[in-house]
Amino acid sequence: MSDIRVGLIGFGNIGAGVVKLLRDNSTVIRDKVGATIQLARIADLDITSDRGVAVDPAMLTTDVNAILNDPEIKIVIELIGGYEPARTFVLKAIAAGKHVVTANKALLALHGTEIYAAAAAHGVEVQYEAAVGGGIPVLSAIKGNLAANRFGSVFGIMNGTCNYILTRMTQEGADFSDVLQSAKELGYAEPDPTFDIEGTDTAHKLAVLASLCFGASIDFNAIYTEGITGISGIDIRFAEQFGYRIKLLAIGKRTDDGQLEVRVHPTMIPLHNPMSDVGGVFNAIRLTGDFVGPVMFYGRGAGQNPTASAIVGDLIEISRSITAGVDRRRAAPLGFLDSAITPLQLKPMEEIITKFMLRFSALDQPGVLAGIAGTLGEKGISIESMMQTARHNGGEAVPIVIMTHEAREGAIRAALTEIDTRDFICEKSRFIRIEDNLE
Amino acid sequence: MSDIRVGLIGFGNIGAGVVKLLRDNSTVIRDKVGATIQLARIADLDITSDRGVAVDPAMLTTDVNAILNDPEIKIVIELIGGYEPARTFVLKAIAAGKHVVTANKALLALHGTEIYAAAAAHGVEVQYEAAVGGGIPVLSAIKGNLAANRFGSVFGIMNGTCNYILTRMTQEGADFSDVLQSAKELGYAEPDPTFDIEGTDTAHKLAVLASLCFGASIDFNAIYTEGITGISGIDIRFAEQFGYRIKLLAIGKRTDDGQLEVRVHPTMIPLHNPMSDVGGVFNAIRLTGDFVGPVMFYGRGAGQNPTASAIVGDLIEISRSITAGVDRRRAAPLGFLDSAITPLQLKPMEEIITKFMLRFSALDQPGVLAGIAGTLGEKGISIESMMQTARHNGGEAVPIVIMTHEAREGAIRAALTEIDTRDFICEKSRFIRIEDNLE
Repeated sequence: MSDIRVGLIGFGNIGAGVVKLLRDNSTVIRDKVGATIQLARIADLDITSDRGVAVDPAMLTTDVNAILNDPEIKIVIELIGGYEPARTFVLKAIAAGKHVVTANKALLALHGTEIYAAAAAHGVEVQYEAAVGGGIPVLSAIKGNLAANRFGSVFGIMNGTCNYILTRMTQEGADFSDVLQSAKELGYAEPDPTFDIEGTDTAHKLAVLASLCFGASIDFNAIYTEGITGISGIDIRFAEQFGYRIKLLAIGKRTDDGQLEVRVHPTMIPLHNPMSDVGGVFNAIRLTGDFVGPVMFYGRGAGQNPTASAIVGDLIEISRSITAGVDRRRAAPLGFLDSAITPLQLKPMEEIITKFMLRFSALDQPGVLAGIAGTLGEKGISIESMMQTARHNGGEAVPIVIMTHEAREGAIRAALTEIDTRDFICEKSRFIRIEDNLE
Repeated sequence: MSDIRVGLIGFGNIGAGVVKLLRDNSTVIRDKVGATIQLARIADLDITSDRGVAVDPAMLTTDVNAILNDPEIKIVIELIGGYEPARTFVLKAIAAGKHVVTANKALLALHGTEIYAAAAAHGVEVQYEAAVGGGIPVLSAIKGNLAANRFGSVFGIMNGTCNYILTRMTQEGADFSDVLQSAKELGYAEPDPTFDIEGTDTAHKLAVLASLCFGASIDFNAIYTEGITGISGIDIRFAEQFGYRIKLLAIGKRTDDGQLEVRVHPTMIPLHNPMSDVGGVFNAIRLTGDFVGPVMFYGRGAGQNPTASAIVGDLIEISRSITAGVDRRRAAPLGFLDSAITPLQLKPMEEIITKFMLRFSALDQPGVLAGIAGTLGEKGISIESMMQTARHNGGEAVPIVIMTHEAREGAIRAALTEIDTRDFICEKSRFIRIEDNLE
């Protein structure tokens, strides 16, 4: 049996997990590959900090070229994250004929098209299972055994920080800022959690997922992205009363008119749907294929060990190709041939059609409901149900919540803009989109 | 682009689905494989019945050798089911150097070792994703991206007929025989449902799953298999009161003492666990890997279209190997090298340790509880809680339900045998095993 030599760029928490997994399960891996996956070099700017795993100091280098220029290294793992210098290192590795494994969703969301084309040109594989859903093997499934399907939709709860915060807000009736503070102290949120709570991380992952499902290159900047910072305890309680739970949901779907919706925002999910039960740091991804129907995947979406599982899984797949003597790459990086990948236009948010929960803060006085309902009616928005919880002695702001039937988002926005000019409205009106059709 | 010619043996409901999928999604498939998967011949004893799909009559044959002896056919799909002649046909196809795709769990559970060895000897692939969980791509995931893990456990709800019956019994409070009759009329149960309701079908699937997870050849006949025919409405209602739902669960796990438990029986699952919500004809499979942690897969476990999705997914994977010029099989059929597969002994049922719900039918008279509790205590069985719902005027049978702490099954059986000799016991006492640790 020959060794397959691997170089690791980026020796942080996840990198240490990869080292640990390759060491702890070396026998399992050899039994499945027929060769030993040998970690040959690790490059990082910091090669002195203790990562909690023992490595031969001779393996460590601060010079990334010690990996990129080593002809014996067949696979490079990129774990530094971010756009640069990750992009440069990955493209150099590909140009040197090395296969690449990465967990970098930001890189793939923005520069995937360039990287996949380079990989195709040089006949190497790029694998990135850890970029979406941590250890959940959903990307392999889409490229692999589910490949016979046309996918109609993909939904995902894919950011552990947001899901942890929303789960605690739901369970404790707590407010966003309090839970965020506590999440930071407990290590469930980064010191600067902007990328997570504003939805950017989820949008990166959705860009990758939707590209795979729909065989499309997707303009990341065209993805509508709304985070969870605007969600309040009152939204969560009203949603629950109507039979829904609020999740930060990534949504990709083909609509009946053949267009593509790709969007990330807080979404109300029916309580009876299994995805509403996905709590804490767990992730879930639900796809619908034209033949397979709905399929759901569930597991730990982040963390050292699950992420290492996905990365080493990618190493094993590539190593099997190497030991099987594949004379050209087995599948294009997106599972489609490059020639079949098309750029796809996304449907503008104004055009999407769904149900909405509208929340108004209005003075408790006669004529308010008639005023709101009148404007909604003029815009062609039909009301399914309405709730006004408290009555006061008049003159005070009370919440009014309305569930609509399916409506065009543009009409909702126009109606709320108009309603917000009325004297009886006390603060900016809000809406949350609903996803009833998760099957 | 060259064609990859495929032969189909067995033109029933699933076969018709494969024909439909290859026709409807031929563009998608060509875009992913770089070649056309061409169904060349279909063999069946009946080539005149209408299957609801149009096929060129010249493609149909009653002579299976027209496929097995055609050197242009590279892949054979076996969909006749059962042990023989399926086994003979599969071995002949392999001997002729053809790759094989099968959905036949019975065949693999009984003759998998022989078939995998033949495939290894002839350097061909055997793929069988449709054998477990219908369209759910769980086997590919275990062999593929999850391969870096040592699996500690696998749990599955994998028989749609049983799950449909138990779901309706739970929802309607109906009894087994009534729901079975209705399920037959609605087509959710076969006219002769023995293989399903006695657990045999689930045990076949578990044999396949456990072989993959644990890298072992498993003696099918050593798998403890208990179906759902003994479950009554009263069991379901008591289970619910204690916070559990009864499912026919396939269980494979490594225990702390290094032994393997592989068993199929009605099992009480905590209501708060997502698997308890898997209803009707849906399947769910939950694995735990040492690095990835718990992962759950959920989807349609049977039916023409989902099963066709898995079968054509297998065709795509093999076709990619062919177009990539793989000069020997990419991975052994179990994901492990043949040399790494070991026969594993299963732990005897008497030795398994779990919690139990015990149900007694006893006369309502003084001393009964003391008598039951005394015997349990003598056998080292500790009681967690007890419920006796109705009180009568004495002399009538009432149900007494006891939840135990963890106990050895042998002790439970011995205690019940002894208790059943007592005068106050009106019918044979029953027990249902509990699975609290699904994570």
